[in-house]
Amino acid sequence: MSGVEKRLAALETRLRDLEDQVAIYQLMSAYGPLVDSGDAEATAALWTLDGVYDWGGGPKPAEGTPMKEGAAGAAYSQAAIADMVRGPYHQEIIQGGAGHVIGLPHIVIDGDTAIATSYSRLYRRDGENFRVWRVVANCWEFVRTTEGWRVKQRINRVLNGDAEARELLRAGVK
Amino acid sequence: MSGVEKRLAALETRLRDLEDQVAIYQLMSAYGPLVDSGDAEATAALWTLDGVYDWGGGPKPAEGTPMKEGAAGAAYSQAAIADMVRGPYHQEIIQGGAGHVIGLPHIVIDGDTAIATSYSRLYRRDGENFRVWRVVANCWEFVRTTEGWRVKQRINRVLNGDAEARELLRAGVK
Amino acid sequence: MSGVEKRLAALETRLRDLEDQVAIYQLMSAYGPLVDSGDAEATAALWTLDGVYDWGGGPKPAEGTPMKEGAAGAAYSQAAIADMVRGPYHQEIIQGGAGHVIGLPHIVIDGDTAIATSYSRLYRRDGENFRVWRVVANCWEFVRTTEGWRVKQRINRVLNGDAEARELLRAGVK
Repeated sequence: MSGVEKRLAALETRLRDLEDQVAIYQLMSAYGPLVDSGDAEATAALWTLDGVYDWGGGPKPAEGTPMKEGAAGAAYSQAAIADMVRGPYHQEIIQGGAGHVIGLPHIVIDGDTAIATSYSRLYRRDGENFRVWRVVANCWEFVRTTEGWRVKQRINRVLNGDAEARELLRAGVK
Repeated sequence: MSGVEKRLAALETRLRDLEDQVAIYQLMSAYGPLVDSGDAEATAALWTLDGVYDWGGGPKPAEGTPMKEGAAGAAYSQAAIADMVRGPYHQEIIQGGAGHVIGLPHIVIDGDTAIATSYSRLYRRDGENFRVWRVVANCWEFVRTTEGWRVKQRINRVLNGDAEARELLRAGVK
Repeated sequence: MSGVEKRLAALETRLRDLEDQVAIYQLMSAYGPLVDSGDAEATAALWTLDGVYDWGGGPKPAEGTPMKEGAAGAAYSQAAIADMVRGPYHQEIIQGGAGHVIGLPHIVIDGDTAIATSYSRLYRRDGENFRVWRVVANCWEFVRTTEGWRVKQRINRVLNGDAEARELLRAGVK
C-alpha cells in the first residue's frame, strides 16, 4: 500500500470512530425529547426489536408474567417499551410536567458494540418549581445495525446509596 | 475523478459534518456561562443581528410595543437580547446565585442551517441548597454565517405539562 | 508539497482537533461515575501527578498545613485527590445517595493545553426526592501527556451570587 493509501485508510478509520461517538450522542439525546413528548413508537425505535429497558425491574420474569410498571419496572422488547410510554403511569408523569434529562455520557466503543455510562434525572413540576424526583445511574449497551446504532440494553438504578447503582457507574468507565 | 480524489472529497465532507456538530455544541455551551456572568454583548453575539429569543413571550408584537420581560418574555434582535441580560430582572437572578444549564442536545444539520433540541434548567440559590426553578424544552435554529454558526431563533417553553412544550421537543427529533 | 499531500495534511490536523475535543469530553464525563462509585485511584488518575483540585479551598497553603476537607476544600496532588475520595466526608455523601453531574462543557484547545468551562451539580438523596445541594461553576485546565489528556487544575466555585464564581464562567468562554 502506498504512503497516500495508508494515510487515507488511517483517516477513514479515525473518522469513523468519531462518527460513531457522535451517532451515539445523537441516539442518547433523542430519548428525553421522545419520551417526554409521549411518542411511543419513536421512543421504542431507539432500541433493537429485542431491546431491554430495565429501570429497576430486575431480570426478565418467566413467560406470561405481567410487565412490571411504575417507578421500578422493566420492558424486554421494543413493543413493551412502547407500551410503557403509552401506559397511564408514564402519561400522568408527562402531563403533570416532566423532563427526562441526561448529562454528557462516557462512551466506550468496541467495533460494532458500545457501552455508555451516564446520569439521568427526572424533574417533575411542583408548584412554581420542579422537584428532582430521580437521579439515576445509567448503563447503556449499543449495537451497530444496518440502520445505525441502536440500544440493546439500558439499565437504570436510582442513586439511593445502594452499592448496585454505584457499581453500574464504575463498570462502564475504565 | 481518481480514486484518491474521491476518497479525499468524501473525507472532507464527513469531517465538515463533524466540525459543524462540534461547533454547535460549542455555541450552545457558551450561552450559560455568558448569561450567568452577565456578559450582555457576548451573550447577544451568539445570535444573528435579527436573532430571536422567545422564552415564553410568544410571537413578535406590533412595532412600538415594549419588550416583554420577566419569567416569560421575548427579544427580537441582538440588541434586545443584550438589554434582557442587562435588565434588572436578569441581574437580580444572577446576583442571587443562578445556573442556566443545558444537557446534551440533539442536533439535525441540513447544509447551512441546523436545529437543536435540548433541555435547559435554571437553578437558583435557596438557603443551603438550590431550587430548580425552570425545566425548559428548547428548540434552537442555527444558521451558518461568514463568522461561523449563529443562533437565528431559540424558543423555550417550561415543561409545565402543556402540549406546547411537549410539541417543541417532538418537532426537533425525527 | 503536492495537492494531495496538502489535503491529507489538512485533514490530519482537523481530525486531530476533533479527537482532542472528544478526548476531553471523555475525560470530563469519567469524573462523576468514578467519584460517585468511590474509585479513589481512578478518580485521581484523571489528574496529572501534581494536579490541583480546588473546590472552594483557595490557594495552596504552606507546607505542613493539613488539607482542607469538607464542603470547601482543595487537594494539590493526585495522592491528595485520592485521599479526598477515600475520606469520611466524601464517603458519607456517596453512601447517602449522590450524583456529581456535569452538563455540556465549552472547551478551548490551544495545542497541548486546553481549558473547559462547565457546570457541575451535586444531587443528594432526600427522602423520596433529591435536593440540589451544589450548582457549581467549573474551570478545568488540561494538558496533553504521553498517556493522553489529563487534568492539570480544576477550580470549582458554588454559584451563590458571588462575583468569583461568575468570573470563573466568563474567563473560559471568549
